[in-house]
Amino acid sequence: MNKLKIAVDAMGGDFAPLNDVSGAIIAAEEKPDQLEIILVGKEKLIRDEILKHKISLRNLEIINADEVVTMKDSPVESLKTKPNSSISAGLDLVKQKKADAFISAGNTGAVMTASILKLGRIKGVGRPTIGSLFPTDKGKTMVFDVGASVDCKAVHLLEFAIMGSIFMKNVHNIDKPSIGLLSVGEEKSKGDNLTIETYELLEKSGLNFKGNVEGRDVLRGKVDIIVCDGFVGNVILKFAESVLDVMKSKFKSYAEKGFFHKIWVGMMYGTLKNVVLKDFDYQEYGGVPLLGVDGVSIIGHGKSSPIAVKNMIYKAEEMVRKEVNEKIRIELSSLTKESR
Amino acid sequence: MNKLKIAVDAMGGDFAPLNDVSGAIIAAEEKPDQLEIILVGKEKLIRDEILKHKISLRNLEIINADEVVTMKDSPVESLKTKPNSSISAGLDLVKQKKADAFISAGNTGAVMTASILKLGRIKGVGRPTIGSLFPTDKGKTMVFDVGASVDCKAVHLLEFAIMGSIFMKNVHNIDKPSIGLLSVGEEKSKGDNLTIETYELLEKSGLNFKGNVEGRDVLRGKVDIIVCDGFVGNVILKFAESVLDVMKSKFKSYAEKGFFHKIWVGMMYGTLKNVVLKDFDYQEYGGVPLLGVDGVSIIGHGKSSPIAVKNMIYKAEEMVRKEVNEKIRIELSSLTKESR
Repeated sequence: MNKLKIAVDAMGGDFAPLNDVSGAIIAAEEKPDQLEIILVGKEKLIRDEILKHKISLRNLEIINADEVVTMKDSPVESLKTKPNSSISAGLDLVKQKKADAFISAGNTGAVMTASILKLGRIKGVGRPTIGSLFPTDKGKTMVFDVGASVDCKAVHLLEFAIMGSIFMKNVHNIDKPSIGLLSVGEEKSKGDNLTIETYELLEKSGLNFKGNVEGRDVLRGKVDIIVCDGFVGNVILKFAESVLDVMKSKFKSYAEKGFFHKIWVGMMYGTLKNVVLKDFDYQEYGGVPLLGVDGVSIIGHGKSSPIAVKNMIYKAEEMVRKEVNEKIRIELSSLTKESR
Repeated sequence: MNKLKIAVDAMGGDFAPLNDVSGAIIAAEEKPDQLEIILVGKEKLIRDEILKHKISLRNLEIINADEVVTMKDSPVESLKTKPNSSISAGLDLVKQKKADAFISAGNTGAVMTASILKLGRIKGVGRPTIGSLFPTDKGKTMVFDVGASVDCKAVHLLEFAIMGSIFMKNVHNIDKPSIGLLSVGEEKSKGDNLTIETYELLEKSGLNFKGNVEGRDVLRGKVDIIVCDGFVGNVILKFAESVLDVMKSKFKSYAEKGFFHKIWVGMMYGTLKNVVLKDFDYQEYGGVPLLGVDGVSIIGHGKSSPIAVKNMIYKAEEMVRKEVNEKIRIELSSLTKESR
């Protein structure tokens, strides 16, 4: 098996460089013959972090990048004002074929924007898409798009369905992933202009299309993939993420009512966490792929743990080895020009 | 105070006619001098239900309607196939000025469609809107629109903001309600074409506009009113409603793991219900108004309790007495034609 080079943003996320470097080291240790990890960021900080681990890994490299895009930086601005950021430097490695993939737990918007601008789109792709996993009773459903592309046309949603299917089949091993179109009613005639037009395209696409799904179906695992415009997907994702915070803060206020309330909440909390809260903790799911860009770029949650970082690296490896982008290129080039 | 006539759909909802009639009787008993209730539906069933209460109220009337629109009927179809439904008959009373308002816990889509078609729009209103209350830490936020109008233009979202403000001020007693525009980022430049255009209109509207809000802000009470296209609003509403079901089913599966699990869940359940679940129980919030139609029409949850039905009747009374529709007519007639 050929050795793959994965560039890791060592400055990405709320716990950088600690979690990024730790995750990279775990991956480098576990797969010495399959992976070579390139840590990108402030060299001194990275070296200090590696030293703490008291290891000498041959498959770990450092590339210096002096600037850091923070979680608060504007995605588009940061590209101009911080040309030497770890995000830019990491993506340049992919563009120059010095790395096979890039992963980052940094500013989602910045990684997404930089990936699209630096790597460009795969030929045939109108709009790139970013997917997000939602927990369901029966496993997981991935929603495309959750914020890469807004003001989509029907053909873009069709592209999301095609790219999502290739990703779910190759990286999540789901044969013929089922697809639902997010709308406001189950009938074909229900929805807005976009969904009504998209329904027609999906119906004759040859994909495993199951018709419309509604907001209430997202957490019910009716389908493997749900497609929607990035505006709607982003609103639901952020709404879903907030549910956990709201529940936590309600329990906190309840506990503050008095000593016994506190004890009681303490007693319940373990069960609560395992039974429901865990599923709404979106940071547990590791990175999400940005599909449609000409290079592999995986974006992780800002609160990613070392294990989450490691999983992002493995997901990137999987995408490269399974040639997901090449498969996207082939599938989308056969989409007739009329449907655009 | 003049006596108002409120038409009540006695066949609406999952517990008809029981809850509808019971709620109507409570309202009629509590406000004998202010209200006259007209129960609309199958006369025999309604009479049987009233007999159980062993009362004789002078301010209770029955109007027979032989057909019933079920929760499964198609909204548009039901208007044609069931012309003598309680929904149609009740709205006809409003149209003919024989009633001041109509309330129904029946098929939401059918009541909405029938209200729009039978009552028509208030002059100056481009699109009607239906609002839904979301619980927040600081009280409640009402989202307009949650499904009455999709494919909206910017001016329609401006209308929702104006109508929503009038409603919140007059019915919920909130002076200068604050307004947020649902988008995918806080900055003015973030969003899709619709929100970027709407931002401009809201900024110069003279309303208490607070800028963009995101999906994560819906449950955080940042603003009193959130405006969005009915497609997005409907998806979030249904997603939010499903959170309760998902949590309940998770606790149920956990309890089924064994005897002690069951006891433990039983012990926790009271607290859980009071602390978090209650807030996600959208049926507790009574009816929601359909704004912009030329007549008062309040739509309730299919699972409405008698108290919820009573509250819908009082909300309808409030809308009539405060002349909400007349205020909408005045405000919207001053919207310049250029912005359309």
